[in-house]
Amino acid sequence: MTQEYRIEHDTMGEVKVPVDALYRAQTQRAVENFPISGKTLEREHIAALAQVKKAAARANLELGVLDEDRSLAIQAAADEVIAGKYDAHFPIDVFQTGSGTSSNMNTNEVLASLASKALESKGIDVHPNDHVNASQSSNDVFPTSVHVAVTNALVNELVPAFEYLATAFEEKAAEFVDVVKSGRTHLMDATPVTLGQEFGGYAASIRYAIERVNASLPRVAEVPQGGTAVGTGINTPTGFSARVVELLAEQTGLPITEARNHFEAQANRTGLVEASGQLRTIAYDYVKINNDLRWMGSGPNTGLGEIAIPDLQPGSSIMPGKVNPVICEASIQAMHQIIGNDTTIALASTNGQFELNVGIPVMAANLLESIRLMANISRVMADKMVKGIEANTERARFLAEASPSIVTPLNKVIGYEAAAKIAKYSVKNKMTVKEATIALGFVENGSITEADLDKALDVTTMIGEYK
Amino acid sequence: MTQEYRIEHDTMGEVKVPVDALYRAQTQRAVENFPISGKTLEREHIAALAQVKKAAARANLELGVLDEDRSLAIQAAADEVIAGKYDAHFPIDVFQTGSGTSSNMNTNEVLASLASKALESKGIDVHPNDHVNASQSSNDVFPTSVHVAVTNALVNELVPAFEYLATAFEEKAAEFVDVVKSGRTHLMDATPVTLGQEFGGYAASIRYAIERVNASLPRVAEVPQGGTAVGTGINTPTGFSARVVELLAEQTGLPITEARNHFEAQANRTGLVEASGQLRTIAYDYVKINNDLRWMGSGPNTGLGEIAIPDLQPGSSIMPGKVNPVICEASIQAMHQIIGNDTTIALASTNGQFELNVGIPVMAANLLESIRLMANISRVMADKMVKGIEANTERARFLAEASPSIVTPLNKVIGYEAAAKIAKYSVKNKMTVKEATIALGFVENGSITEADLDKALDVTTMIGEYK
Amino acid sequence: MTQEYRIEHDTMGEVKVPVDALYRAQTQRAVENFPISGKTLEREHIAALAQVKKAAARANLELGVLDEDRSLAIQAAADEVIAGKYDAHFPIDVFQTGSGTSSNMNTNEVLASLASKALESKGIDVHPNDHVNASQSSNDVFPTSVHVAVTNALVNELVPAFEYLATAFEEKAAEFVDVVKSGRTHLMDATPVTLGQEFGGYAASIRYAIERVNASLPRVAEVPQGGTAVGTGINTPTGFSARVVELLAEQTGLPITEARNHFEAQANRTGLVEASGQLRTIAYDYVKINNDLRWMGSGPNTGLGEIAIPDLQPGSSIMPGKVNPVICEASIQAMHQIIGNDTTIALASTNGQFELNVGIPVMAANLLESIRLMANISRVMADKMVKGIEANTERARFLAEASPSIVTPLNKVIGYEAAAKIAKYSVKNKMTVKEATIALGFVENGSITEADLDKALDVTTMIGEYK
Amino acid sequence: MTQEYRIEHDTMGEVKVPVDALYRAQTQRAVENFPISGKTLEREHIAALAQVKKAAARANLELGVLDEDRSLAIQAAADEVIAGKYDAHFPIDVFQTGSGTSSNMNTNEVLASLASKALESKGIDVHPNDHVNASQSSNDVFPTSVHVAVTNALVNELVPAFEYLATAFEEKAAEFVDVVKSGRTHLMDATPVTLGQEFGGYAASIRYAIERVNASLPRVAEVPQGGTAVGTGINTPTGFSARVVELLAEQTGLPITEARNHFEAQANRTGLVEASGQLRTIAYDYVKINNDLRWMGSGPNTGLGEIAIPDLQPGSSIMPGKVNPVICEASIQAMHQIIGNDTTIALASTNGQFELNVGIPVMAANLLESIRLMANISRVMADKMVKGIEANTERARFLAEASPSIVTPLNKVIGYEAAAKIAKYSVKNKMTVKEATIALGFVENGSITEADLDKALDVTTMIGEYK
Repeated sequence: MTQEYRIEHDTMGEVKVPVDALYRAQTQRAVENFPISGKTLEREHIAALAQVKKAAARANLELGVLDEDRSLAIQAAADEVIAGKYDAHFPIDVFQTGSGTSSNMNTNEVLASLASKALESKGIDVHPNDHVNASQSSNDVFPTSVHVAVTNALVNELVPAFEYLATAFEEKAAEFVDVVKSGRTHLMDATPVTLGQEFGGYAASIRYAIERVNASLPRVAEVPQGGTAVGTGINTPTGFSARVVELLAEQTGLPITEARNHFEAQANRTGLVEASGQLRTIAYDYVKINNDLRWMGSGPNTGLGEIAIPDLQPGSSIMPGKVNPVICEASIQAMHQIIGNDTTIALASTNGQFELNVGIPVMAANLLESIRLMANISRVMADKMVKGIEANTERARFLAEASPSIVTPLNKVIGYEAAAKIAKYSVKNKMTVKEATIALGFVENGSITEADLDKALDVTTMIGEYK
Repeated sequence: MTQEYRIEHDTMGEVKVPVDALYRAQTQRAVENFPISGKTLEREHIAALAQVKKAAARANLELGVLDEDRSLAIQAAADEVIAGKYDAHFPIDVFQTGSGTSSNMNTNEVLASLASKALESKGIDVHPNDHVNASQSSNDVFPTSVHVAVTNALVNELVPAFEYLATAFEEKAAEFVDVVKSGRTHLMDATPVTLGQEFGGYAASIRYAIERVNASLPRVAEVPQGGTAVGTGINTPTGFSARVVELLAEQTGLPITEARNHFEAQANRTGLVEASGQLRTIAYDYVKINNDLRWMGSGPNTGLGEIAIPDLQPGSSIMPGKVNPVICEASIQAMHQIIGNDTTIALASTNGQFELNVGIPVMAANLLESIRLMANISRVMADKMVKGIEANTERARFLAEASPSIVTPLNKVIGYEAAAKIAKYSVKNKMTVKEATIALGFVENGSITEADLDKALDVTTMIGEYK
Repeated sequence: MTQEYRIEHDTMGEVKVPVDALYRAQTQRAVENFPISGKTLEREHIAALAQVKKAAARANLELGVLDEDRSLAIQAAADEVIAGKYDAHFPIDVFQTGSGTSSNMNTNEVLASLASKALESKGIDVHPNDHVNASQSSNDVFPTSVHVAVTNALVNELVPAFEYLATAFEEKAAEFVDVVKSGRTHLMDATPVTLGQEFGGYAASIRYAIERVNASLPRVAEVPQGGTAVGTGINTPTGFSARVVELLAEQTGLPITEARNHFEAQANRTGLVEASGQLRTIAYDYVKINNDLRWMGSGPNTGLGEIAIPDLQPGSSIMPGKVNPVICEASIQAMHQIIGNDTTIALASTNGQFELNVGIPVMAANLLESIRLMANISRVMADKMVKGIEANTERARFLAEASPSIVTPLNKVIGYEAAAKIAKYSVKNKMTVKEATIALGFVENGSITEADLDKALDVTTMIGEYK
Repeated sequence: MTQEYRIEHDTMGEVKVPVDALYRAQTQRAVENFPISGKTLEREHIAALAQVKKAAARANLELGVLDEDRSLAIQAAADEVIAGKYDAHFPIDVFQTGSGTSSNMNTNEVLASLASKALESKGIDVHPNDHVNASQSSNDVFPTSVHVAVTNALVNELVPAFEYLATAFEEKAAEFVDVVKSGRTHLMDATPVTLGQEFGGYAASIRYAIERVNASLPRVAEVPQGGTAVGTGINTPTGFSARVVELLAEQTGLPITEARNHFEAQANRTGLVEASGQLRTIAYDYVKINNDLRWMGSGPNTGLGEIAIPDLQPGSSIMPGKVNPVICEASIQAMHQIIGNDTTIALASTNGQFELNVGIPVMAANLLESIRLMANISRVMADKMVKGIEANTERARFLAEASPSIVTPLNKVIGYEAAAKIAKYSVKNKMTVKEATIALGFVENGSITEADLDKALDVTTMIGEYK
């Protein structure tokens, strides 16, 4: 450990910084102050910080706050950070000051170092606060960067992954359109459905997930940039707020908009809580789907055995030949993580007082992780499970016909109470529903002809018209 | 306790029922099976169940499933239940069968009794299953009733209450437009804002609450009616689903729509989870607002003391003269209840397998309670607190000028680092920022004139243009 | 509504109070200030408040703070309130001032009215604050009352209910000691267990629940009484704190102890959060047990069908003869309520600042409800379900023998990899494991004799020795 | 990326594995199956897995299942893994099969490779399943490893960190024993306390945290080892379970015990949920303490300003000289993470059905992270904040005397209602309580002498005797 250091200073004095670090004193202080989790900002978050800096440098040039040399140098440096070239120079722990000031200053310092180096020959120095951070405050930059990173992840990663999984389910729904199986309500034998109808329902859940994410976007994509310290926009030139947000939207291709109320936007991160809430709602749907799938695939001999889930790996270190629904299990675990992350994110909103929330870094880390997990799980589910699922058509049909609830169409012929007698009689005496109907005399007494009975009990007529 | 009984029967046998009860055997069984919480369905929920029955009776008449006598009698009975005339005949515990079958049958039995009595002279009997429940299943009726009750509560109770509170904050924002006070970030002295800006921010939060509720409505207002047992619509005539939902929307004046996918709609109650998620998100905003208000009102002598919250009641049984921010406290507690209810509601979604969720009654009870609490709190906050808040204008201005952060405008004149020296010097030596600036020689050395300094440090120029 | 009123006054002025109310001005103000939920304090909570008042009246007499007439009159009045005679005079909403000051004053006022009436002939007046509340503050009385009510409910309601359910499971475990069935891991066929072993495991879970509750009791049963306003015990005579707690323990027969640190005890309600945390942990065990039971009972024809759960009520309004596991469903819903209540309770702990938590009433209401739900569910589960469960012994045995995992004992003979081949071969070719072993030549090649194979595959030898 | 591969096989066929990997086919399959989070098992967890393998190798030798060569080679290999030498060979994602079978097999494969290499010269091969995993199943090994790792982290990391922080608070409590300050209840001015009493309360909270962790240990330290596949102990020699757990306890020096009921222990991970529940309860105490501290330190000029929190880093990129309570913020964020992790852990318990929970890896990752965060935060709080806190003694005393609640001792002299008049009068007229008492004539009318009044109003007499 013979790492060499150089001396940097800030308004509190001198600090020893690794000699090759692009960052400076404030970053180093934060590294030392927060030896907590070992987890740093997500890659996308670093990029989003640099996007904000780039947009600010552009607006500052247009509005006369920065000269062209410095503005262009900062923009060029930001582009490199956006590209991921200097992630190693962002070493601060997620569990840091709640405003993300440390990470904003980290960005300022890295960009100042890069831009200063680029302008060295011209003898121009770029200051982290006076130039890179000009017209900005951590209090608008950092939350804006989170909303940008989250919006990007939702729009460009999550929604496409939802589409991918929904399509996989839809293709299977078409494939299984004629696979009749027993419906189950309360886990008990119910009237028939098709496996295609069930898979169509799963696809619909995923399509609703897209709607849910989109419904939150207008508020997620609103950013406080321009409010600076407390929402008043102190130390910004007129027009800065609108312009910097416009540039940010243009740079990123995202539907970023300026906060409609800068005091709400400065004090609260409610858009993030809402987005996380939608993910948590969606996560519960994923849990349900994965539970259904693994129950349908349960067995091979003692379970429901209606579908075969692809074999991916040996399932037991002791029981030979056992194969388990591991993607379902991984998915449900990831969903539980997303739901727990949502608790963290929502609670972090209690960390807001007056003009600032100071729980932003933990919100960002959890929300970006949740989106990543959900996107990855969606693709893994599609590729490693859904596409490979096969129906055990015969067994499914056998069970559909074994359900005493297929007596239901007789309600309209002989009434609910008489039909109940048939169902109970069939189960008790291990007869088919038809046999029980006849045994109880309903054909004999003319309530129904045997031909009509056959027609009424044909499970393929009970599945309705919905696809 | 000499209650008299009559004997009723159902498909499982005979049951003793209170002699005056409109309900019958299945309701009575459920009363006996679930002696758990003592809490019954919410009033609005009972009304919504009867709305569904009425719409079904109308559609069944139109489509030839019911004769006119029975249909009209059921509709008339439903109208009485909607009006709240027979709530006492709905005695079943919330913690019952998870499909709400017991409460659906309770409704069927009460309506059958009322309709049968009305048709007694004609010698026509109305059967709970064969007539009142015709073309229906608990599995579509009960969830539909929840979505109807929730949509109604959101649209007709909650949104107007939000409007009411938002308006109260907006009126105060206008009143406090010139009350300059210290901003606070990280709880520490920041640059100035106006009290009006803060109240405007609170109003914006409430306006966003309306947006959040509305964003969830398309999915909350979608109902599974017509799917009957498992989503296939078994035992319904063609066209029933679309028609019954149309009639339901017409009757209630609510934007109720038919489920786009009946299998998703049958198996999941995700719309309810989403709506609850929005309430929980909004609840966190209420917590923040109430915390801000009580901190601003803290004191009278040892706290921030920037506003006076109306005195409502003596605050201490031991400390004479003490008055506390009790509406803030009641509000925050109600919000914590709503957030806890949301946990229950979301978890209840794990109680769905295959074609049915069996956690619906607990979802309904919690969600309707949450909406009621939030609506009531909104009006109580407005009437008993917000409208009566007064600004301690002088103290607020005094603190604004005492904040060392008012040095911030000097960044642009002398740079961030020099400005930091002034701020620290002023705090350390208990000087004003102006005194510190002069003491450190910045006027003398020509960095700034005293006149410019006065202008730069005028707090009324630091509050920006945002309202 | 011709309710008549009388005029009462407090330190804030006059108030109109219903003419027959035992309560006075402060209660009435609270009724008017908090029209929020319609839910009042739990019965046990009112009793506990009166227990505290009684103990205080006794200690105040002993320590010379109160004269004998007043002390005895207050004690006698408290006994009547403890007995539940005046619950209707406690009308204040749960969502009130977070310290419970309103309910403490409600108690003070009711007791003062009763005691004053008793002493009317002697011309002695009893004052709510100066006498009933002597040596006390809402800030110690109210939280103490919650800990007393909770401790009582845990010790006298919940633990006996756990014992009752555990015993029911243990009796069934003994009954099912020889019912061999397939084990299931990952929902997939595993090696055999007995139904008795599974029921023994459920009993063990409930026995652990008792341990968990007991582990939290030392902190739940600690009370802040004597700390008065802020923990310093201002306005109490020397020795009051220890004595009043001693009397409280004696009166209630509960293991109540004095807070070891009065500042911690005044500021936090962590003991309640901990107790609720244990309930939430236990609730998850109940969810698991009820899910297992309903899956084992699933069918009758398309599910696992290993046990029969007692029929309690018709299960469907459309599918005749259907019966559902309704107690499982009610139980799981109640557990979800308890888990949601825990969220509320835990969050309420964030409502503590400096010397007081102001989220106590909502904590109390939720925790007492949770205990009540869990106790009731335990007894309902035992009486209406567990005791009546019957094993489908034959089907269970059939499935046990059908599981390919019964190949597991062959690991030790032919190795894991060869055994895996047999298992896969048997499933693929729908053979028994024995048939597959022979078909693959393991008997022929002398790896195992047929006799040893029979012995190895005897499922009754695979269930181990654990009961 | 010209990584070279070798071919490995398992019961499902051939797999390409990196040529230098100690792991084999099943690990590689899992790497490919779970490209989800990028997060692998915690270091301590890998060590605990190897501890189990070592104990099993020892017990297997003693009980004749393994020969000496293989047993010793496995033990030696395990020691290297325990020491952290091969962490890079454990590449599987946390979000994997819910039993942790993949990670158990990873351990089996790494140890088999290491042991086989060591025995190469003797021509002895060690098989992952038949030898390393002998007498074991993933279903007992993996959960056992989690309980071992968690117990170790609780006992050896967390409790010492609690001790460290408690001591820091206790030292400050002693230092601040005479710093009188205003108490605050409902955020409003209350009777005085000392800063020492408050810090003593914080220390007490941390001491209770130790009790809470210890209260859960008996169940956390219970392990299912020996139950193998389903709790029956199939494929273990008699006495294996007791012996392997004894050896595990001996090796680790931890209070590890054998499950009292192997079916409960196999099916549930409730001990982990309970432990996490205790952490979440403790986390809320940390939130409260950190909130108190940052409010006491708020200012410097517009807040409470009763203490000075050490300056660690510049607090704002725009407001010069601003310093923020960053450790409080980092701590609260970490607590919110722990509370969110607890949600995940508790939910993962719903992933248990019949003989196995399949949410174990996510439980392990979250619980071990939570313990690590809480331990690190405890030390960071102590070292970077608590030890350096200074009291603003004069300001604290000034505020104590400014509180109108110091009128409280007059209750006993002139009654609560008269005292209330004084308090209100003093606030309204900006007088001291003494001035108000005199102005209202209580000295003049002989209610109290001025000397007694001075004595009654001396704040140093109001702080009681509790330390």
